[in-house]
Formats: sequence, C-alpha cells, structure tokens
Amino acid sequence: MNTVETIPELRQAIKQLERPLGLVPTMGYLHEGHLSLVRLAREQSASVVTSIFVNPTQFGPNEDLDAYPRDIPKDLALLEAEGVDLVWMPSPEIMYPEGFQSWVDVAEVTQVLEGAQRPGHFRGVTTIVAKLFNAVQPDKAFFGQKDAQQVAVIEQMVRDLDFPLEIVVGPIQREPDGLALSSRNVYLDIEQRKAATVLNRALKAAKASYEAGERSGDVIRQTMTKTIQAEPLAKMQYVSCAHPRSLQELKEIVEDGTLLSMAVFVGKTRLIDNLVLGPNH
Amino acid sequence: MNTVETIPELRQAIKQLERPLGLVPTMGYLHEGHLSLVRLAREQSASVVTSIFVNPTQFGPNEDLDAYPRDIPKDLALLEAEGVDLVWMPSPEIMYPEGFQSWVDVAEVTQVLEGAQRPGHFRGVTTIVAKLFNAVQPDKAFFGQKDAQQVAVIEQMVRDLDFPLEIVVGPIQREPDGLALSSRNVYLDIEQRKAATVLNRALKAAKASYEAGERSGDVIRQTMTKTIQAEPLAKMQYVSCAHPRSLQELKEIVEDGTLLSMAVFVGKTRLIDNLVLGPNH
Repeated sequence: MNTVETIPELRQAIKQLERPLGLVPTMGYLHEGHLSLVRLAREQSASVVTSIFVNPTQFGPNEDLDAYPRDIPKDLALLEAEGVDLVWMPSPEIMYPEGFQSWVDVAEVTQVLEGAQRPGHFRGVTTIVAKLFNAVQPDKAFFGQKDAQQVAVIEQMVRDLDFPLEIVVGPIQREPDGLALSSRNVYLDIEQRKAATVLNRALKAAKASYEAGERSGDVIRQTMTKTIQAEPLAKMQYVSCAHPRSLQELKEIVEDGTLLSMAVFVGKTRLIDNLVLGPNH
Repeated sequence: MNTVETIPELRQAIKQLERPLGLVPTMGYLHEGHLSLVRLAREQSASVVTSIFVNPTQFGPNEDLDAYPRDIPKDLALLEAEGVDLVWMPSPEIMYPEGFQSWVDVAEVTQVLEGAQRPGHFRGVTTIVAKLFNAVQPDKAFFGQKDAQQVAVIEQMVRDLDFPLEIVVGPIQREPDGLALSSRNVYLDIEQRKAATVLNRALKAAKASYEAGERSGDVIRQTMTKTIQAEPLAKMQYVSCAHPRSLQELKEIVEDGTLLSMAVFVGKTRLIDNLVLGPNH
C-alpha cells in the first residue's frame, strides 16, 4: 500500500493504478462503516484509493474540529488489511493554500436538516469533495448512507456540475444494539452509550407505524419525537420525514424512498441517524 | 468533424479522440480571436474540441443575452476549416436542467473590474466552465487574453479546485487599427466603429508613459482616462492598473505583469480591452 501527501505525488501514483478506480473519502479514525465502504469499493473497482483528511471548512466555529479523533497508524493498518492500493493524506496547507478563494455551493438541498443546524457545513463538504474528485479522478466514489443529506447534496452536485463519475452509497453499519457507527461515538460515556440507541429506536418505531399503514408525515415525525423525548439523556435537535432527493418535509409519505432522519444530542455529543422507508428499502 | 449535443453523446465521441485533448470554449459567432485559439489548440493537442454555448447565467438581467449574435452554420464551417475534431453544442436545458442548484464561486478576484460592474457574471462563468471541464475532461483549455479577468478567475478556480488540466492563454487579436476583436463589435455603426479604437489608443498612451519611466498607478490610470474622455462617442466605465493575479489596483507598477484594463461604452455597446506591462510582455 502506497501513501502520498501532495497532489503531484498523488497524480503520479494514480497513473500506475488499474482502472476502474474507486475512491473512498474519509476523515480518518476509521470504523466498520468506513471499512464496509472500502470493501464495496474493492468489489466494484480494480484499484481503491482512500483519502484521509479532517476537512476544516466543514466544521463550524463551535464544532469539534480540534477535538476530532485521529489515529493515523491504526487507520493505515486497517486500510492495508483491506487491500487498499493508495492512501492520500494531504495537509490542510495543501488543500487550502494561502489565497484559496473558490467554493462549490449547492443551494436548496443544503438549506434544511443538517444544513439548517450547521451553516456553511455543506459548502465545506462540496468544496472538498469537488477537490478530491478533481485530484483523484475516480470512476466511482463511495459514501455512507449514515450521512444521508451529504449523499443527496453530493449527488446533486455531481449531476449539476457533470462530474464524470458514479456515486455509490453503502448501507449504515450498526452496533448489535442498533447504534449507527460513528467516529463520534467515542465521546459517549457508558450511560450515554446506552441512551444513544434512542435514535435507532425512534426510527424503528416510525417504521413499524409506516408498516402498520400510517402515511401522515406529521404522525411519523410525532412518533419519532415521542420516542426521543422518553429518553432522559437525549435532547432532540430535529426529526424529519422528507422527500429523498429534495429533502423537503412531506405531508404524506411518498411511494418509495421517504427519508426519516434526525439529529439528537446525547450529553454534548451530537448524533445523527436515518432510515429509508418504502418497499424497495 | 463530428457534432454532438448531449453529454452522453459527447462522452462517447471523446472516447474516440486521441490525447492530449484541447478544449476551446466559445459562445459562438466566431471571429479571428476564437480561431487563433483553435489554431493554438491544434498546435498543442492531438485532438481539439470546441464548445458553442451562449451561457445564460453569465448575463445580467439588463444585458444582451437575447440579442447576443449567433450564426451556427458559419461557425461550423469555420471550425471545420480549422480541423476541429468535435463541436459540442448543448441546449440551455441540457446545461441547466430543472432543479439545477450547484454553483462554483470564486471570491476576491471576481469582486473588482468586470465583476464589480456585472454582479453574478463570474459565478455564471466559473460554473459553466467547471461543467465544460468535467464534461469534456480536456488536458488543456484555451482562453483569450481579451477577457483578462476571466483568465485570472479561471486560473484561480483551477488552482483552488485542483482541476486536472492546463489553462493556455492566447494573445488578443486586433483589427489593423487596433480595435480588439469581439463578437459585440457588430453592434457598432460606422462612427462608433472609428471611436472604438479609443480603448487601444488609451492603452498605448499608458504603455508609452510606462516606457518613458512612469511607475505611478494613479498617473497611468489618469493617462488612460484622459484619452478616453477626449473621445466624444466614448463613455468610460472604469480604467484599471492592477496586479495581474489579485487584480487589486496598484499604487506603484509591479516589476512584471501589471494589467492595464478598461471598460468603455461606445453608444450602447460595452467594450473591454487590456494590455500587460512589463519587460516580458
């Protein structure tokens, strides 16, 4: 497994790789969620590139950029074991040199849910992802369904700006008790860790209601809200029952692909989770 | 010479072309300025793609989008004669389908000169150019020095977003009396056509002053202003003596590459021109 830092080194290394090329962008501190994406990339590509970059422009001023967990030696060992061909670990100075001033902005779909709670977050995401795409030029790029809005935003950007690649979305990976894997789960103490299952429990309650025939967006949102409010250590930020592409809140569940999602604080840790409703999900 | 409209057709046609691939983006109504870029592309590339697209998002609400001159049959004959391999002529609906919402924004360098006079213009330019780059994936893209700020903005975007290509800039093409070639010159009547040489005369006066030893930005700007004000049919919008990359106005001429530029109305026609000062220019 080869490791590079600068873009010229990256371009040189990529020339040696067989196509099709799969890219798995990460912020490091890898868990089974990331590794499942690497395996998906491995299955669908002749070569796999993983990037590790904690992107400062997608963190708000009061968010956890400095505290964001990092463990590069462990990450590299995991990626090597998965048969990754190339790991790109640029510095912030390489990605955002002095005088940097170009941004990719996706409008409507970034204004709700995570975008409403984290102003500027998606501008940071789309800009760094555009840079990763241009630098690596993958045939496919792999993202996790865990960040459902990120997937919708990146798919919108790829369609609108004609990026010559395919986005592949891997399913959410969960602990045995249903907690979605996240690098931020390390912030949770034992009691909080138990309480954190409330996100998945709320999604399951909503799904049960849907499967029992409920089609009202309001009722579905209410079901999720009540489950979260019953957990003393959890503080709900939002719940959503939305169209899967536009992410606009629904009055009535759409035929296929309705996205249920939420952000919940457990202590100081902000967790997100989601589930797609519909016969094909 | 092959002609395509949709992006799938384009991608299919490009697969057949030899690399390196040169792209010459145009808005059609081609003149010698465009053709000189095509020849430059021909010299430096194995294959040449030209796009013809009058990009609505770079025109302001009070600008000449609807009136913008078009002559596709003539354009195609000219490009065929220059040995262009592929012409891409997308419709506005292909480039901006319903729900389009992604934009590329370059910040500081778009805020002055043309950007100050034409709000939103460069957002339209950078967005369409990013789309052209992603759709065609050229090795080199060719732009005219006539639009000096456009060149600075696109070079900034390419550096910041890591587009995997080289920008090549072709020199301004001029009529025998010095008027810079422009598709908009067709708007000029005979008297206006004579008056329009004032842009080049102002640039030459400034250059003569520089060559005589003048180094003050204010004096150089004053020299251009006076020349333009002496022409009754001309109405100056701005003159500039600026740093070639940042486009910030200069108090003192920089060692090499100072950009002199201006926008002048002759009748209702808005004309621009520029010249680079310095020993290597």
